[in-house]
Amino acid sequence: MSALEKRQVVFGVMPVLEALKAFPQKVEKILFAEGRSGKVLSEICKLARLNQVPFQRVSRQHLQKYVSANSNHQGVIAFLASYDYCDEDELFAYVTSKHQSLCLILDGIEDPRNFGAILRTAECVGIDAVFIPERRAVGLTETVAKTSAGAIFNVKVARSANINRLIEKLKQKNIWTVGADSEAEMLYTDWDWTQSTALVLGNEGKGLHELTKKKCDALVKIPIFGKVKSLNVSVATGIILYEIVRQRKIKENNFCPRLST
Amino acid sequence: MSALEKRQVVFGVMPVLEALKAFPQKVEKILFAEGRSGKVLSEICKLARLNQVPFQRVSRQHLQKYVSANSNHQGVIAFLASYDYCDEDELFAYVTSKHQSLCLILDGIEDPRNFGAILRTAECVGIDAVFIPERRAVGLTETVAKTSAGAIFNVKVARSANINRLIEKLKQKNIWTVGADSEAEMLYTDWDWTQSTALVLGNEGKGLHELTKKKCDALVKIPIFGKVKSLNVSVATGIILYEIVRQRKIKENNFCPRLST
Repeated sequence: MSALEKRQVVFGVMPVLEALKAFPQKVEKILFAEGRSGKVLSEICKLARLNQVPFQRVSRQHLQKYVSANSNHQGVIAFLASYDYCDEDELFAYVTSKHQSLCLILDGIEDPRNFGAILRTAECVGIDAVFIPERRAVGLTETVAKTSAGAIFNVKVARSANINRLIEKLKQKNIWTVGADSEAEMLYTDWDWTQSTALVLGNEGKGLHELTKKKCDALVKIPIFGKVKSLNVSVATGIILYEIVRQRKIKENNFCPRLST
Repeated sequence: MSALEKRQVVFGVMPVLEALKAFPQKVEKILFAEGRSGKVLSEICKLARLNQVPFQRVSRQHLQKYVSANSNHQGVIAFLASYDYCDEDELFAYVTSKHQSLCLILDGIEDPRNFGAILRTAECVGIDAVFIPERRAVGLTETVAKTSAGAIFNVKVARSANINRLIEKLKQKNIWTVGADSEAEMLYTDWDWTQSTALVLGNEGKGLHELTKKKCDALVKIPIFGKVKSLNVSVATGIILYEIVRQRKIKENNFCPRLST
């Protein structure tokens, strides 16, 4: 838990800009490398001034201290307030109380960049909750924060002691639980996503656990026409989440999509 | 060009497995770290045997020599045959000769993991061509190969001396050129993707160049409902590519999607 209690570092031009735009009140300080300039950096300075975020020019070496050796900070880092997990029961109560809710269950994502990219997409579609397992999965780390472009501050994430039990409980509350599985028979576009739904994604390598697959109301696949038999998990999540958005928008507007007319 | 002429290394359990499944003839040798085992590793061994790919157990230290210090090879690496770019004119001729062609123009992707994930998705939808600029963009590197899960061997990639000129030429051949731009007015779901199309994506930070935007026939956006104002570029590409697949499938089958009935 110590990593969660201390200040977080976000690095890279776009992540810092995104964080500053989305959550200026969470940005505590910005450091620039000397000699760097550019349009986006100017925008960062402007926004920092506007939001009274202190910023400072330092040497490149000094900046490098805050990030791992291989990370490309692109000459700018921001210190952010800490973020934390939500309580599982509270988040469950929130999700189940909502009309047409949408939540994500990530059953064992290991790569922090994948987790971060998923949180970013989840925030963009206005997800209600993200559940991750307590063990054998990446948590809310610095790389996740960076890759999420600050989305980490606006997505409710809870750690669940037992993902299969969580799925059971969601089903009891009439939330459809749908797993993404490359061997499913149903296409993701053929499922009706307009009801309250929990989308379940598995580990990058192994996919969903067998038991988890059995617990889900349905399994869907994204069609693949190439030789590579699977998509990156953050891309797959984005594709399904935006299909959900598309379907819900159609239902809301009650119109026929252009291609079917 | 030297990096392209030597053997390529792919590391990590899933990338190696994917490469072995998709392009066994391109895998020249596999090295495992001693003491590693597991279901996927067993599958890798089985596939290697089946395809007569030599494999060898070595020490973890030995394995580490082939990848950068921070890379997690998960105990397995594969040496692949080299991959190379296609000739721009030949690829252009190929794309413009096809019915309902689909190509991708990546105008300045900098992050090799983004480029790799895009190639992976592009291969999964059966893309006809990917064009990247000669300068100021990541090329076909090892990290790209790894993140692409071997897709790099099955996607035709050409470097273009002038992206804006390429767009002009595609338009002259009646290929629709559509740029993804977060400030566009049209939703990506409202565009008719069933004609031959070149989808144009810009740099992670800066998006499309102003001139490129002007050259495109249309600009489309993915709707965002959160505070973070943009998606990861590889996720965004995946979302649009699969909307193209969805629309083309509907047209092909000439049926009305379930939600509009």
